[in-house]
Amino acid sequence: MSTALPKGFLASGVHCGVRRSRPDLGLIISEQPSVGAGVFTQNTCVAAPVTYSKRLVPASNIKAIVTNSGQANAATGPQGVIYNQAMVDAVAKQLNCASSQVLSASTGVIGEAISINKICDAMPDLVAQANDTVDDFAAAILTTDLVPKIATQTVKLSGGEVVITGVSKGSGMIHPNMATMLGYLLTDAKLSVTEAEDLLKDATDHSFNMISVDGEMSTNDTVFMLANGASGVALNTNEDKKIFQAALHDISICLAKKIVQDGEGATKLIEVNIQGAPNETLAKIVARDLTISPLIKTAIHGASPNWGRIIARLGFVKVPEEILNQCTIIFQDLVVYAEGKQQALKADALKARMQDDVINITIDLAAGSASTTAWGCDLSANYIKINAEYVS
Amino acid sequence: MSTALPKGFLASGVHCGVRRSRPDLGLIISEQPSVGAGVFTQNTCVAAPVTYSKRLVPASNIKAIVTNSGQANAATGPQGVIYNQAMVDAVAKQLNCASSQVLSASTGVIGEAISINKICDAMPDLVAQANDTVDDFAAAILTTDLVPKIATQTVKLSGGEVVITGVSKGSGMIHPNMATMLGYLLTDAKLSVTEAEDLLKDATDHSFNMISVDGEMSTNDTVFMLANGASGVALNTNEDKKIFQAALHDISICLAKKIVQDGEGATKLIEVNIQGAPNETLAKIVARDLTISPLIKTAIHGASPNWGRIIARLGFVKVPEEILNQCTIIFQDLVVYAEGKQQALKADALKARMQDDVINITIDLAAGSASTTAWGCDLSANYIKINAEYVS
Repeated sequence: MSTALPKGFLASGVHCGVRRSRPDLGLIISEQPSVGAGVFTQNTCVAAPVTYSKRLVPASNIKAIVTNSGQANAATGPQGVIYNQAMVDAVAKQLNCASSQVLSASTGVIGEAISINKICDAMPDLVAQANDTVDDFAAAILTTDLVPKIATQTVKLSGGEVVITGVSKGSGMIHPNMATMLGYLLTDAKLSVTEAEDLLKDATDHSFNMISVDGEMSTNDTVFMLANGASGVALNTNEDKKIFQAALHDISICLAKKIVQDGEGATKLIEVNIQGAPNETLAKIVARDLTISPLIKTAIHGASPNWGRIIARLGFVKVPEEILNQCTIIFQDLVVYAEGKQQALKADALKARMQDDVINITIDLAAGSASTTAWGCDLSANYIKINAEYVS
Repeated sequence: MSTALPKGFLASGVHCGVRRSRPDLGLIISEQPSVGAGVFTQNTCVAAPVTYSKRLVPASNIKAIVTNSGQANAATGPQGVIYNQAMVDAVAKQLNCASSQVLSASTGVIGEAISINKICDAMPDLVAQANDTVDDFAAAILTTDLVPKIATQTVKLSGGEVVITGVSKGSGMIHPNMATMLGYLLTDAKLSVTEAEDLLKDATDHSFNMISVDGEMSTNDTVFMLANGASGVALNTNEDKKIFQAALHDISICLAKKIVQDGEGATKLIEVNIQGAPNETLAKIVARDLTISPLIKTAIHGASPNWGRIIARLGFVKVPEEILNQCTIIFQDLVVYAEGKQQALKADALKARMQDDVINITIDLAAGSASTTAWGCDLSANYIKINAEYVS
């Protein structure tokens, strides 16, 4: 079944020949100029399309986003800049718009020059195939991902209905900060540039920036938001803003969780809830750190509720000793550590629950009222296999 | 073949019954009161023996170090403190010295109470078996280690010869900061308390603190140094100090490398040399960070000279973009990246060299004169197997 785009958007994906047989070039078109915002990697090693797109957003006249997979166009020097511009120019020529109205993203092997001729040759076909579903695009941007990642919602506002459709990709080199892998949030709501920027940053901070597959930060992390206003419906009231923001959060978290669930070699989704933190900064540091610990990730792969590795890791990130003595650690609703020591475990019940596909770890630091949630995945032998063999 | 201890030291190791069949209790005795120094984990979750030993050193009257393996005595609350004291008291009673002359260390499962009765019952036997070789002790302190780790050197000083013998253990939860796993540096040189402290800190900073197996910091990391003066030879001249310091560096680096070579699941030793750094702090951050990157570790497991993952990781730790554009990355003496782009690779030569057991990565940042070396190991499916099954 295919997923429809919000009004006024078209999308497509084709095989241009960078990858052996999978689709590797995707395009999103906004029929009317669209408000556009973006958040990008904080890595100082930035890909050419990131440097390029970062300069263009926020904007109110975006016509398209082009994305190639298989080659990241990162660490490619001045040639990478030229090739990215050529890719964007080829889109602009087909759409009869200015190049500065076209955003770009790339994902794949670092350090390899992109196959610019193959990409440009495929452009007429890519534009010709544009249609009102998002599926071909979602498939064309994948690399080591096993499944495409799409989420959509219709949101009722005071002035009428709007649609938000999101797409993401990502499986390895996932520990975003500021933005993540590739994400695209498209809506036919009528947003101002400032609204789009604020909403995107807020949604990203609670979703894509709270996931980790392997603690690695990509050179290409990008999330774009396009709001083309085709529904004619704006955020007229504070209630509208809240409803739209909540829907955007839902979609972003849904897409972010799809990334970790499809994490390289992942067999389980790990959800870490930190409660009772003295402040949100510490809550986030602790939550994200637990999702990158190889010993915690392997324990969960082995279905072991290993609280010893958790308390050691909390100490590693300098959670004060008094908090370690008073905190509570809960696996799947069962308290395993409290009051400074191991709790009488319902061993059989816990063992059974550790077989679940989603493992929840809740830690109440009992030191305040801040809370947060982060998502990660287990570490399996398959992660090693994928990354010892894949050149990326 | 067994390794002799420096003059005036005795050691032993027995099976007291915590572990199924491997030896699990070790003792080092200094016949005369010895100068003692220690460096310890910076984890805020500290084991009872760490809190205890930290209070006693530096000192000039140390008689013994007792160590149990299989149970870490960490996150064990007030009971852990009582049991550690009981272990130390049992040694003091046998040796007829004060408890405050006995240091202690533990390694193994976090959160489990140590089997104090088994440990105390074995104490007379442990003391009775003390002899002038270090091998039984080195075996008794192992956990997931596959091999014991011993290094020794005879050092010629102006006043005569002294011996330094070192022992270490560690295989997982290895990313020390300030101290590491368990390490013991024994010498019959005549050192002042200050000399012992300074020499230990300096040697640790260049060896144990520069290794990583999995980026995890233990609750029990400890390195002890005992100098009993039994040779009658002191560090009389600056030249003596330099010679002794160099020998201690050699032994510490040798023991530290043995830990990563025996890292859980490791098949290759990775040596990272950072050159041309603007300062030593940045050099160390970069060098250590590269040794914990799962994508670099898996690439090397797959014998791939993947410089793209290295440049991405340099950007992750915020090495400025201009340095990324000017740095040189060398695998096994072959330049793979320079002047902002991939270099023409001698692909066959490089591929052959990547099969070696020791992989050297040298990065010249061309931004100063500071340099450093860190050691790590590859990440294999066996690491997952060990840690998905082992409860630690």
